[in-house]
Amino acid sequence: MLTIGVDIGGTKVAAGVVDEDGEIVEHALRPTPADQPDLVAETVADVVGELAGGREIEAVGVGAAGFVDETRSIVRFAPNLAWREEPLQKKITGLIGLPVVVENDANAMAWGETRFGAGRGQTHVVCITVGTGIGGGLVFDGKLYRGRWGMGAELGHIQVVPEGRLCGCGNLGCWEQYASGNALVADAREIARQQPERARILAELAGDKIEGEEITEAARKGDDASLAAFASLADWLGQGMADLAAILDPSCFIIGGGVSRAADLFFDRAKETFARQLTGRGHRPLADIRLAELGASAGVVGAADLARQR
Amino acid sequence: MLTIGVDIGGTKVAAGVVDEDGEIVEHALRPTPADQPDLVAETVADVVGELAGGREIEAVGVGAAGFVDETRSIVRFAPNLAWREEPLQKKITGLIGLPVVVENDANAMAWGETRFGAGRGQTHVVCITVGTGIGGGLVFDGKLYRGRWGMGAELGHIQVVPEGRLCGCGNLGCWEQYASGNALVADAREIARQQPERARILAELAGDKIEGEEITEAARKGDDASLAAFASLADWLGQGMADLAAILDPSCFIIGGGVSRAADLFFDRAKETFARQLTGRGHRPLADIRLAELGASAGVVGAADLARQR
Amino acid sequence: MLTIGVDIGGTKVAAGVVDEDGEIVEHALRPTPADQPDLVAETVADVVGELAGGREIEAVGVGAAGFVDETRSIVRFAPNLAWREEPLQKKITGLIGLPVVVENDANAMAWGETRFGAGRGQTHVVCITVGTGIGGGLVFDGKLYRGRWGMGAELGHIQVVPEGRLCGCGNLGCWEQYASGNALVADAREIARQQPERARILAELAGDKIEGEEITEAARKGDDASLAAFASLADWLGQGMADLAAILDPSCFIIGGGVSRAADLFFDRAKETFARQLTGRGHRPLADIRLAELGASAGVVGAADLARQR
Amino acid sequence: MLTIGVDIGGTKVAAGVVDEDGEIVEHALRPTPADQPDLVAETVADVVGELAGGREIEAVGVGAAGFVDETRSIVRFAPNLAWREEPLQKKITGLIGLPVVVENDANAMAWGETRFGAGRGQTHVVCITVGTGIGGGLVFDGKLYRGRWGMGAELGHIQVVPEGRLCGCGNLGCWEQYASGNALVADAREIARQQPERARILAELAGDKIEGEEITEAARKGDDASLAAFASLADWLGQGMADLAAILDPSCFIIGGGVSRAADLFFDRAKETFARQLTGRGHRPLADIRLAELGASAGVVGAADLARQR
Repeated sequence: MLTIGVDIGGTKVAAGVVDEDGEIVEHALRPTPADQPDLVAETVADVVGELAGGREIEAVGVGAAGFVDETRSIVRFAPNLAWREEPLQKKITGLIGLPVVVENDANAMAWGETRFGAGRGQTHVVCITVGTGIGGGLVFDGKLYRGRWGMGAELGHIQVVPEGRLCGCGNLGCWEQYASGNALVADAREIARQQPERARILAELAGDKIEGEEITEAARKGDDASLAAFASLADWLGQGMADLAAILDPSCFIIGGGVSRAADLFFDRAKETFARQLTGRGHRPLADIRLAELGASAGVVGAADLARQR
Repeated sequence: MLTIGVDIGGTKVAAGVVDEDGEIVEHALRPTPADQPDLVAETVADVVGELAGGREIEAVGVGAAGFVDETRSIVRFAPNLAWREEPLQKKITGLIGLPVVVENDANAMAWGETRFGAGRGQTHVVCITVGTGIGGGLVFDGKLYRGRWGMGAELGHIQVVPEGRLCGCGNLGCWEQYASGNALVADAREIARQQPERARILAELAGDKIEGEEITEAARKGDDASLAAFASLADWLGQGMADLAAILDPSCFIIGGGVSRAADLFFDRAKETFARQLTGRGHRPLADIRLAELGASAGVVGAADLARQR
Repeated sequence: MLTIGVDIGGTKVAAGVVDEDGEIVEHALRPTPADQPDLVAETVADVVGELAGGREIEAVGVGAAGFVDETRSIVRFAPNLAWREEPLQKKITGLIGLPVVVENDANAMAWGETRFGAGRGQTHVVCITVGTGIGGGLVFDGKLYRGRWGMGAELGHIQVVPEGRLCGCGNLGCWEQYASGNALVADAREIARQQPERARILAELAGDKIEGEEITEAARKGDDASLAAFASLADWLGQGMADLAAILDPSCFIIGGGVSRAADLFFDRAKETFARQLTGRGHRPLADIRLAELGASAGVVGAADLARQR
Repeated sequence: MLTIGVDIGGTKVAAGVVDEDGEIVEHALRPTPADQPDLVAETVADVVGELAGGREIEAVGVGAAGFVDETRSIVRFAPNLAWREEPLQKKITGLIGLPVVVENDANAMAWGETRFGAGRGQTHVVCITVGTGIGGGLVFDGKLYRGRWGMGAELGHIQVVPEGRLCGCGNLGCWEQYASGNALVADAREIARQQPERARILAELAGDKIEGEEITEAARKGDDASLAAFASLADWLGQGMADLAAILDPSCFIIGGGVSRAADLFFDRAKETFARQLTGRGHRPLADIRLAELGASAGVVGAADLARQR
């Protein structure tokens, strides 16, 4: 039996027909109507309609950034799409006449990776998606952990520095201000502005348009500022994993998200920092730390599979 | 059917015969042979033997401070009793001929409170025992969460201040260095030393022997230094709960441990700080924050019940 | 007898003929040849030549950003003009045939303000120029304090936050990263990015080109983000003055530089923070804290007067 | 012509007859009547009377911990002796009939060292006395720098850590909470409590009475905790000197006070940290950093000489 998974991103809506083995049978893309959040449900319905044509579809799973309620129906709060108490499940079901499950996008990715990717066979999975911010998903004993009201696993918003950098959530010092793609860009720009002699390669590549792509390329060419920004990201990532291990003692961390494509620039160091900062180290096994395997389709696959298991 | 719960503390071993409703039918105490950790198993056997006399006992649950392995048999590392890879379950079973389950003491308390105390009816419980340090226990959907290797819920060892106060675990800036009884004493002593005019009531009560009891009494009499130490504890406690809620979205926090007997001096403020620091506040329900109800016997009751459900 | 003062800024060279009372008799401007630091001496000579025409000029004082050596001849290191060991005094003297004194620009301003502006009659003056960075000048008992090698009063480079924000000098946590115009812009941009709802007025005024002018205007219209950025600047300014008072016990602080034109937005709060943070407060008089009076011409007037007193 | 110098310490009053070359001709000691601050003037008069017998004494200089006013007469505030607005000069003069000059004790030491000790020939001296706290003295161009109201050079009370350790002055994060003898003891005790395995040598030497002497001895025997405490002191000392050099550009730092007797354990590292943290390093000479030469008598010698030059 087939299900459809949909991943609503900030710029595009990705969707796919997924089978029981997590294989994407067919996929489709639409631009996200980011300025008109009311139209997102219609875009989802449209792409589902295209994919469903002539197939028997059991259900649809939809991953969306934001706090999704415990009934997996309502997006209570989504920073990027300006949704507040958006009844997304009801809207989409009304348009397509199929069962719909709404899920936080990082939860969907965590589920996809645990079922079909880097987390297969693991009993206690902590999935960290390092993109512009940090998202998280927890899968314990083959079950997605969502918390009492569906708002768990907001890993990016643990405070790691008292009175630290301002976060979009309104707090100071959140982890995602130190270990995400945005943090990488902020750190590299700061060094380039204050110590331009350390950022010559970066300046040649990027001019004054420094973004993650340029930092990655510059770092691979030996740019000192870019390497320093990746080292900082690695250390904060490792420290955060040590904190999560103190609480959750997972068998495995999975690192995904756009920044993980530059894993050659931070992954080994993050693992070293984790091993050095773990409480009780020396008296306990170290969790595996793995890169995600499903790439950008983890969210589609995970959402589809969650719909199947609704 | 009856079980026996044992709580091995730093100074005494408490034990009780517990029925299916979590009631203690009979209890007994022994001093902990702290200098001879090898004798702890014998002390446990001795007190169990006394309590078991003439009763049919199904199993024994033992709570001990330290990292207990996933088979609930071995204490891998216990800071206070100098145990390393101690096969406690095997030793005690050998002496008493009954099934034995070993559990981290804070886990046992969390289980006791969830089953029979402040956490009844809650689906997602985070239990924080504020004593000399901070212990933790997690109970999700009626099941104790132990992590992959039994080392989860070491909540006291999340880093809350980078390069902060040295912790007994070897790391810097652990939560229990800011929100525990030891932190309370350290903070009050520091103020008394540096600003004696703020600590006059405390000085009268304690002389130069400032401990938690005196700080509590002085705070209730309006001592400025003692009140400031409690305020700091409250703020750090609230911030830590906000971090845990970002990860776990619990329905309920339970605050226990010796320091919770002075809840009048920090509990309201901790709740306010939690509500102010919670990520996504305003778009989500607030978890209940409750005081533990079983007092010092939570560990005995919890250990006994875990043995029943082994 | 007349002297000429020259103030070499990042974008323009300002010069003036100054009399014994600190009055500017005539003035002139040239664009700074910022890309060709070798031509700066010629620009200075050119503007001096224009002003000197037909007048008897005793000497020329030149203020320049950077570390000026103790013989007041060589700019050892100037971040903005890429000078390294630049023999500016010798070059200019060679071109104009008059005695030349080179001085750090903030020192020149401090001298001008002390002799003819806000510091008249004061015995111990600490002058703080809050522009893109922070400059400083010290005048004790009617004498400019320059230190052993002319490098004193680099007030912007005291460390105020361990492991804090990266500074152009290569260190972390320098005061000018928290209490300057650049800090103001960084703080306001950060809030606007993370919490756009607090920066609506600023966004209307500035679009995505947020600079000091727009922040100032927005703050005066009640923009929350802009007011918060000014409040942070005020607190750091007050704390820094408290530190300087612990060391120097001045009779008077003078606050100048471009940011001081927005004094209505930070000055009172900075004074309050100073009074609250001063060590020994209650047992000592509070230094006066005054705004500079000579505006942009303080540097020209001060440099001219230092040349007179060479 | 001879003068007498008196150094009022927390436990003893030291005094000496001093000649024009800074040589102590005769000296005497009295216990400090610490519980009866009113009697200190009489103790001073008594010891001066003993020393003066049969000699012609020109004047008396008295060094006292605390904020001394600009007329060098009144101790406005002394933390250790509970003086508030104490007219010490008038009291002593009344008792002995000789001219009296009162000076802050660290200022007196700085003057003694500059005139006759490690600072001879130096033009810009910053003297740092590292004892239980940190005291300071500044001598520029052969003149003691006292600030407008005599309260300058309170170097121990620069804030180095925002919201840091509580200081006896009522502020948070003062330098003397990180780089003094008290800081050394606090750091070593903290490590010994939290990580006793690092403090075995210290524990053998000190039991639970850990003070500076024991830490010093243990460090020399290789005790890890004690060495770490000295390393921390060294780093904070070096950072503080870098900050002072940014402001004052001295030719020379002099490190004195009781802790300097253990210079083998921190001095080289403090110099390295200073050189690494100095703003503008590479473009400026490094100040000399020297150990004090006069030992415990610097205060007596300095006070006597200040009286001579009154």
